Amino acid sequence: MTDVLRAGEAARVAGVDEAVSLDELRLAARNHGMPLEALRHDLTPPGLHYLLVHYDIPFVDPSSWRLQVGGHVRTPLTLDLADLHDRPRVSRTVTLECAGNGRARLLPRPVSQPWLDEAVGTAEWTGCSLAALLDEAGVLDGTVDVVFTAHDHGTERGVEQDYTRALPIAEALSGNVLLADEMNGAPLPPQHGAPVRLVVPGWYGMAHVKWLRDIAVLPSRFTGYQNAVAYRLRADADDPGVPVSRIQPRALVVPPGFPDFMTRRRIVDAGAVELFGRAWSGRAPVVGVELSVDDGLTWTPAALGPETSRFAWRSWSFAWDAVPGEYTLRVRAADTEGVQPVDQPWNLQGMANNMAQRVAVTVR
Amino acid sequence: MTDVLRAGEAARVAGVDEAVSLDELRLAARNHGMPLEALRHDLTPPGLHYLLVHYDIPFVDPSSWRLQVGGHVRTPLTLDLADLHDRPRVSRTVTLECAGNGRARLLPRPVSQPWLDEAVGTAEWTGCSLAALLDEAGVLDGTVDVVFTAHDHGTERGVEQDYTRALPIAEALSGNVLLADEMNGAPLPPQHGAPVRLVVPGWYGMAHVKWLRDIAVLPSRFTGYQNAVAYRLRADADDPGVPVSRIQPRALVVPPGFPDFMTRRRIVDAGAVELFGRAWSGRAPVVGVELSVDDGLTWTPAALGPETSRFAWRSWSFAWDAVPGEYTLRVRAADTEGVQPVDQPWNLQGMANNMAQRVAVTVR
Repeated sequence: MTDVLRAGEAARVAGVDEAVSLDELRLAARNHGMPLEALRHDLTPPGLHYLLVHYDIPFVDPSSWRLQVGGHVRTPLTLDLADLHDRPRVSRTVTLECAGNGRARLLPRPVSQPWLDEAVGTAEWTGCSLAALLDEAGVLDGTVDVVFTAHDHGTERGVEQDYTRALPIAEALSGNVLLADEMNGAPLPPQHGAPVRLVVPGWYGMAHVKWLRDIAVLPSRFTGYQNAVAYRLRADADDPGVPVSRIQPRALVVPPGFPDFMTRRRIVDAGAVELFGRAWSGRAPVVGVELSVDDGLTWTPAALGPETSRFAWRSWSFAWDAVPGEYTLRVRAADTEGVQPVDQPWNLQGMANNMAQRVAVTVR
Repeated sequence: MTDVLRAGEAARVAGVDEAVSLDELRLAARNHGMPLEALRHDLTPPGLHYLLVHYDIPFVDPSSWRLQVGGHVRTPLTLDLADLHDRPRVSRTVTLECAGNGRARLLPRPVSQPWLDEAVGTAEWTGCSLAALLDEAGVLDGTVDVVFTAHDHGTERGVEQDYTRALPIAEALSGNVLLADEMNGAPLPPQHGAPVRLVVPGWYGMAHVKWLRDIAVLPSRFTGYQNAVAYRLRADADDPGVPVSRIQPRALVVPPGFPDFMTRRRIVDAGAVELFGRAWSGRAPVVGVELSVDDGLTWTPAALGPETSRFAWRSWSFAWDAVPGEYTLRVRAADTEGVQPVDQPWNLQGMANNMAQRVAVTVR
């Protein structure tokens, strides 16, 4: 673990005036956010759902795919796709967000996948229950973590690995977690983890391990790279920090009017404008959304739509009487534990940054 | 047209040392390329197919959608979706590439959507024939262009517009062009032009107008923004240039081995490596692919797979005996009219740039 942590200390933060690098652009060209007008869809179509692939999308033959379940259990299991399908089917509608969403808006900017606001999406995931599977395997007393290993292979800061991340045993047994093989009623697309991925409702995306191949039950804390180095909330290089876990509250608005191609600045015709958006939190239930048209000086409550599912976004709307001028819209969600920050919650890797969105609008 | 051309003269080229701007990153976060490992798929799944949306993805209600066909015709038509479905169905497998693919590799870099190599995809498109529809409407003598207008609305360099682009009448009547409402056997996804888009086999993406609403037959040359200003091959600001049209030849290789997360540099184990890729040209049939492992000093022919469809990519492969060391792979396609350039074919807007791909590889 010491070696792994040392590698982690190489996490880089850009200089204050340092523009986006070719490395960051290369990641932005492959991975993609959800264009914010797609907030209109209750369920995000696969090609609009945000996507982050750490290494390459692996090609996994579904007919030869096997899942190993082992480690600190009574009865290790080996399952194929038919075995998984024979188990009771469970569906959950879940809003998934990348832990690095908003990173490229931070100053100074942690250097990694340069997300702006769009690393989010909501889908209905179907598969079988992880808790039921672990119950079959018989988790032994003294279990601490459950470790999920994927087929995608690469290096990060010098550490060669198959993507692997662990969940605390309490979360793994909560009954919320799925091994999903369907997205919005269709087989998982290759880029979303075919044939089987983990879905951990309420947690940031790094926990939803795609292209799953192995589940290992551990009687100790997992010290692999994605828990011990990456996806960690660290104030600075001397702070060991804690692993990223649940999604912080966030609201987003569909940018109103129409855009300029190059700047994406919005132009809105004066008059009644129905602002619409979504709000979610994995940490606690969303209880309110507020909107500001003056860059956060004053805030007015929006009308919150019904909760359709605990871990899915809620719609909200706001009737804006738009008068000609220049505006900066901001929107923030509150859950039962608190409200979104207006200023950046900076950390070394730009994780779980839920600074309130900002949209520049010209009303004509 | 003079006003429009003047606006076009504001096309910006970055300074030689100027890094990627927030404007460019904002476009890269919304739009996305095809991760190159997806070259393995004969047909690209929708979420992996490249996507460029000029303004916002419009929400078009399919039940109230109507297509107008008018202008220089004998019988103007108004059609709904059922009317289109009643016509003979035609399917075509087509490789689609953005005219700006490769732009962000140019020096100096034209400032627009900052594509690297990935703005490509291949799909099977199904719908009805444009030529048959125009035949019904009765195109009059003296027709020059056919103009296609979309539902997406925005501004570009000060010009407010619904996205509109024209085809020469010969191409519109060629029998190749489709009004497509299906992609890979499913209804068009919202981001790919639902309910109906144009597909112009062999042409760069700007011609394949999405969210189609109007077809106007013109007895003169169309002088709108997307033909007269954008999507034009211009050497410099004084050159009126010519409209971008057919896809230049290009080959791409699936980057071998596995990547480093941040740099995407490839690591390959020594030994026999089967390099695989695709090659295409809209201009003329592909006749060969060559590979270089020494950054273009020497070239060796690859094995070219069969042509499955005139306007779809062809597979190719190359058996590489990889010996430990540092390599720069390059690959180039030739069609019956010529071979891909190894050096950049620079122009003011970075259009139709088909400089041969470069992949840095460490063999261990």
